[in-house]
Amino acid sequence: MTGIFERATAVTRRDTTDAGGRFDAMVHDGWDIGGNANGGYLLAIAGRAMAEVTGRPPLTITAHYLAPAPAGPCTVDVALVRSGRRMATATAALCQGDREVIRVLGTFAEQTTDPVDAPILVDGGPPELPDYERCEVPPPPASPDQGPMPQLNERLAVRMRPGDSGFRAGAPTGRAEMAGWFAFADERPIDAIALLLAADAFAPPIFNTELPVAWVPTLELTVHVRGVPVPGPLSCVFRSRFVVGDLVEEDGEMWDVAGNLVCQSRQLSLTPRG
Amino acid sequence: MTGIFERATAVTRRDTTDAGGRFDAMVHDGWDIGGNANGGYLLAIAGRAMAEVTGRPPLTITAHYLAPAPAGPCTVDVALVRSGRRMATATAALCQGDREVIRVLGTFAEQTTDPVDAPILVDGGPPELPDYERCEVPPPPASPDQGPMPQLNERLAVRMRPGDSGFRAGAPTGRAEMAGWFAFADERPIDAIALLLAADAFAPPIFNTELPVAWVPTLELTVHVRGVPVPGPLSCVFRSRFVVGDLVEEDGEMWDVAGNLVCQSRQLSLTPRG
Repeated sequence: MTGIFERATAVTRRDTTDAGGRFDAMVHDGWDIGGNANGGYLLAIAGRAMAEVTGRPPLTITAHYLAPAPAGPCTVDVALVRSGRRMATATAALCQGDREVIRVLGTFAEQTTDPVDAPILVDGGPPELPDYERCEVPPPPASPDQGPMPQLNERLAVRMRPGDSGFRAGAPTGRAEMAGWFAFADERPIDAIALLLAADAFAPPIFNTELPVAWVPTLELTVHVRGVPVPGPLSCVFRSRFVVGDLVEEDGEMWDVAGNLVCQSRQLSLTPRG
Repeated sequence: MTGIFERATAVTRRDTTDAGGRFDAMVHDGWDIGGNANGGYLLAIAGRAMAEVTGRPPLTITAHYLAPAPAGPCTVDVALVRSGRRMATATAALCQGDREVIRVLGTFAEQTTDPVDAPILVDGGPPELPDYERCEVPPPPASPDQGPMPQLNERLAVRMRPGDSGFRAGAPTGRAEMAGWFAFADERPIDAIALLLAADAFAPPIFNTELPVAWVPTLELTVHVRGVPVPGPLSCVFRSRFVVGDLVEEDGEMWDVAGNLVCQSRQLSLTPRG
């Protein structure tokens, strides 16, 4: 059975060449922040088309955000750059009509599962979180600018570390960090495409500082897929360390319930203005 | 007077269209590791061509590495994706003959210097380093696999934190970290293009673990330019936290002598095999 996420990120190949293809897709309602589609959701649509052309899941993928995307039809043009034995590199342009929304560059490959590739160095671990059941359902935002909309929350089953959603009620923690569990409401497994969504599904960590809770436009998002999650929700933590000039970076880590690091993300965004 | 770095990364525009241009350039001798050009050096060549097309310095730029590059002529094909009031996004393909060496995606913009953009959050600081003069000139590698070649060191004036080069003599620190000062031998100022080189100019931090000191092929390198350095060497630190499967990530921070964060980098590479 196809889950709600697969349906919302489905792509249909229209034209094919040796070097890529054009896909039709749909930016669905309900995956948006104040009317514009979530950046990780858009990357998942493009990533799915690129995975089809390369025949592999994403390993490291970067999107540059060019324009906001309202719900509606879109096309994804994928161009294969290089296809090797293990890795394949491709670009994608996701467009709505004549307007390009994101440009993507990624390298795709299956994760290795060779026993000789057991972890050699793991400096850190999952964030300390209460059990999923004891974490908080994120409350609805006070304004459309304040991160994930209720509709997105209905599709996901995110649970926040107690206190990390307090900013919505005017009580930020004072620390530029957001942590919690990521899962789908329909409990579908989390694959490499879903990790692209998870990497951008939490409210910005700087909402827990004194900065205004307003739109944080992402310029660039890079996701490294580091493993295939075992079944279960992901424990996630996002931190911002440097708000300098009008730029802020955000680093994410996503861990599966077996304690494996499955994803790292970094994005560069514009600092919100009150 | 043009510095050695400008000459080694010079690009000459051959063809021009509204949407980009083709540039001739040269992968120079002496910017290599065991005969293949340093990844940051290649990114600097491509970034210079992209900066010429966009009319702005790099802000966030990602390269995917497709093939090793020996010294010799190359071309850089730049395609403008979007040019806005402040930001411009472009792609580049650096090729040697028919072989594509790197594919690049970047967004270019001047740093803001508006006083309202003074640092809002700085969580961390420059690495603790002895003064430049008290740091170590990196010794020549014992094998061509062991990071920067003497020729690269002649062009740069890198100084390592005492002990961090011990791996070359079989005495790694045991911690996946490399720190030191980055400067050019001819003392030219460090601009945004030079930061692309600095982001990949140190030996991999995992050489300070028990992993083999051998070629660490970079798959992807993303550089965020966070500021314009004041004159003087940069204090740099590179760390790897996760060596999982056959993949290792490396995070870099570069700070100017006034204590400003000027650059962050992250790369994903293949774990070296003995």
